[in-house]
Amino acid sequence: MAKKIVTRAENYSQWYNEIVINADLAEYSAVRGCMVIKPYGFSIWEKMQAALDKKFKDTGHSNAYFPLFIPKSYFSREADHVDGFAKECAVVTHYRLKNSDDGKGIEVDEDAKLEEELIVRPTSETIIWDTYKNWIQSYRDLPLLINQWANVVRWEMRTRLFLRTAEFLWQEGHTAHETEAQALEEAERMLNVYEDFVQNWMAIPVLKGTKSPNERFAGAVETYCIEALMQDARALQAGTSHFLGQNFAKAFDVKYLSRENKQEYVWATSWGVSTRLMGALIMTHSDDNGLLLPPKLAPIQVVIVPIYKNDEQFNQISEKANQIKAALEAKGIRVKFDDRDTHKPGFKFAEWELKGVPLRIAIGPKDLEKGTVELARRDTLEKSFYDMVDIENKIAHILEQIQANLLQKAIDFRAENTHQADTWEEFKDCIENKGGFVYAHWDGTPETEQKIKEETKATIRAIPLDYEEKGEAGKCIYTGNPSKGRVVFAKAY
Amino acid sequence: MAKKIVTRAENYSQWYNEIVINADLAEYSAVRGCMVIKPYGFSIWEKMQAALDKKFKDTGHSNAYFPLFIPKSYFSREADHVDGFAKECAVVTHYRLKNSDDGKGIEVDEDAKLEEELIVRPTSETIIWDTYKNWIQSYRDLPLLINQWANVVRWEMRTRLFLRTAEFLWQEGHTAHETEAQALEEAERMLNVYEDFVQNWMAIPVLKGTKSPNERFAGAVETYCIEALMQDARALQAGTSHFLGQNFAKAFDVKYLSRENKQEYVWATSWGVSTRLMGALIMTHSDDNGLLLPPKLAPIQVVIVPIYKNDEQFNQISEKANQIKAALEAKGIRVKFDDRDTHKPGFKFAEWELKGVPLRIAIGPKDLEKGTVELARRDTLEKSFYDMVDIENKIAHILEQIQANLLQKAIDFRAENTHQADTWEEFKDCIENKGGFVYAHWDGTPETEQKIKEETKATIRAIPLDYEEKGEAGKCIYTGNPSKGRVVFAKAY
Repeated sequence: MAKKIVTRAENYSQWYNEIVINADLAEYSAVRGCMVIKPYGFSIWEKMQAALDKKFKDTGHSNAYFPLFIPKSYFSREADHVDGFAKECAVVTHYRLKNSDDGKGIEVDEDAKLEEELIVRPTSETIIWDTYKNWIQSYRDLPLLINQWANVVRWEMRTRLFLRTAEFLWQEGHTAHETEAQALEEAERMLNVYEDFVQNWMAIPVLKGTKSPNERFAGAVETYCIEALMQDARALQAGTSHFLGQNFAKAFDVKYLSRENKQEYVWATSWGVSTRLMGALIMTHSDDNGLLLPPKLAPIQVVIVPIYKNDEQFNQISEKANQIKAALEAKGIRVKFDDRDTHKPGFKFAEWELKGVPLRIAIGPKDLEKGTVELARRDTLEKSFYDMVDIENKIAHILEQIQANLLQKAIDFRAENTHQADTWEEFKDCIENKGGFVYAHWDGTPETEQKIKEETKATIRAIPLDYEEKGEAGKCIYTGNPSKGRVVFAKAY
Repeated sequence: MAKKIVTRAENYSQWYNEIVINADLAEYSAVRGCMVIKPYGFSIWEKMQAALDKKFKDTGHSNAYFPLFIPKSYFSREADHVDGFAKECAVVTHYRLKNSDDGKGIEVDEDAKLEEELIVRPTSETIIWDTYKNWIQSYRDLPLLINQWANVVRWEMRTRLFLRTAEFLWQEGHTAHETEAQALEEAERMLNVYEDFVQNWMAIPVLKGTKSPNERFAGAVETYCIEALMQDARALQAGTSHFLGQNFAKAFDVKYLSRENKQEYVWATSWGVSTRLMGALIMTHSDDNGLLLPPKLAPIQVVIVPIYKNDEQFNQISEKANQIKAALEAKGIRVKFDDRDTHKPGFKFAEWELKGVPLRIAIGPKDLEKGTVELARRDTLEKSFYDMVDIENKIAHILEQIQANLLQKAIDFRAENTHQADTWEEFKDCIENKGGFVYAHWDGTPETEQKIKEETKATIRAIPLDYEEKGEAGKCIYTGNPSKGRVVFAKAY
């Protein structure tokens, strides 16, 4: 615990891993590519879940639960979907084990082979639309607004804790609507819910836009996305909301009797965010001392560390610390009084810094005399003495300041790392030497995007929502062909 | 919706299924033995989760998340565990699909065969203890008190919605302790948490005891259980808490440095309840009109149905209904105002009865004149008029009465269906013709329990915790051999 981690400048990728491991957020398991989310990391995820779940319910959605397994044939029903999702999957082929003949272990019972293999869900559109077929008869059954919290599996070859794991946790919303306009409105509404959450809870600014065809969800007509920028100037897709048109309704024959008494295919959306957001949270705010959590998502918002030389001092300080703790808790602030007698204050300071606790209170014998406490902000690393009177209101205010400061720092970082490129040379230089978001003209073809990707590893992260309205036409940086407006390129996670 | 269901007397099993289906709780999916939990059913499960999760946290536990997959060889590490759990499992053998040669579908890619098969977790002791090995070094790391909310898969051949499905949702607590006494205390503590929840939230009385060796969890030294009695006089195991001794610590080599500076194996517990509790909830309280929910777990505690003949009446009633709704919500009561103009009041009454809403308010034009409302209790089916003044406090009180009444009815039912048998003939008659819990002497051997099971289908549901203290020795009903006290037999789900 509390050992020094490598700095961002030394090795960014290792810095990230060391924070995840040393701050007790997650670790790899014995199963290739699957992670264990440790209690401290999971408690952050629980806070994220609770905030998102409330927003989903406030916008009229209900939770439900659909099967983990999907029959293999379901993936073939939607032509684009099968290419996108039915590839790197965990496949269940048998349903029984038996003792091996040598009596030393167990083996798969070949007599228990499934007639049709089952796929561990990589996403649930197919099984859910197969179910919706029976739930939707008339316009009175619409809109159908359902969300699921679940685990999904995509057999990734190169994995990174939280960012890319074979199994991950997520939520997936799946909605059905009478009209195209209503489905589009829903897809945009949920994109805005994600933006609101990521910005106002996670303190991460995001760029909203749509995806180019190359990056679109397999089976979607339009994919909306929010894109964030990490400290190594790489983009990270933080959430997506898909307008699915009538693709899944047609694939699974989901029709409804309309208000005009006609049989019509329903219109659909799906949208999701995952434990990948934990990766975004870590990479946006943390520094060379470790994790840095925005107060709204910190399991421990304030830690109190006593500074003492003997039992008498400890007892006096504890009394005061417990008073402050109670006053803070009465205001809904999450506090830990670290009264361990097995560790020195310096060790505790470093440990809670590493774990990203936004605010630290230190109380020593002199503080008791003077009626003060020392507050140390994790974001600025500033220390100041405060009078104990009304300390709970002062701290509540500082926590708000920290939340706001983290967002502002991230906004400033993004501004510094957002560029514009007008020629192919400028563009290559930008991508290679500066990183960040690069606004550039593109001729709108998948072929050009593919070539740009091959030559620079940059992809189109988003076509900004106000793309055409801005009306800044120009020429594609790669082909010179006409472009309707600038799109945003970056190297991405 | 709201069609009549079959009665318990006509066909108990069908009655149960029809409630699950018609009250929109769950349904079978296209995947054999796997269910879809529908929004209304899931919202009840969410309330159960929230109440349990708070109790777990209040007793010092944290949530975490462990992998869905377990390497096959792990199951062989603990000798008893492998026999109990590594049989009817979903086995992942491949990690990739490819387009089939005919271009019409997809097939398993034989080149992507796993070196070692992965088992979809039927329970997580093995993968968790493999992880704990790295988390536990010294007594300072103990106790380790962790819970996981997860999906698990056991390939059941005969399934019933909620009661026995291939995939189900549950929580599993896994704790590690310094001493045997502390682990035993934990196992009993969590049994008491379950008893408290099932009794005070679900309004179901339970019998606490330990399991006979035949019924013990595979790998446990002692299994504690709570057993409930359903309306067909069959027992249902509602939750279990296992004292695992040092079995898993030895199997996964988990040692700690003790306070005496010695390397010792840690002591363990595990404990769980699942969506099976939904089955217990449904079967304990429901009647021939449908579901009946205890107020504490009802997603809708009060439904308001307007009775009107024209728009003017509807508008006047709506105004009053919304006032009452606001007053109830201010007291934390969950209310729905059913203002649909597509259905008649009689239809709505039947629908909300079927869905188990504890209390119904009807408001008609005469009520407005008189300043009254009609309240209909779902548990007693009684209707009474109440003055609208202070209606929110009256209703809060009635909801408490309903909660208490449901528990009392279930306690009375259990008392009526609890018997004592002193001879083999009495015992067989009891089991065959009366059902319920039968207290009888047993000689303590697995062989005798097995024979009794073969002849009567009854098993020992619990050895009451006060079994020996009561000190009522006697003779085994089957063998006539000495018995230390009466145990509880029943036919079970």
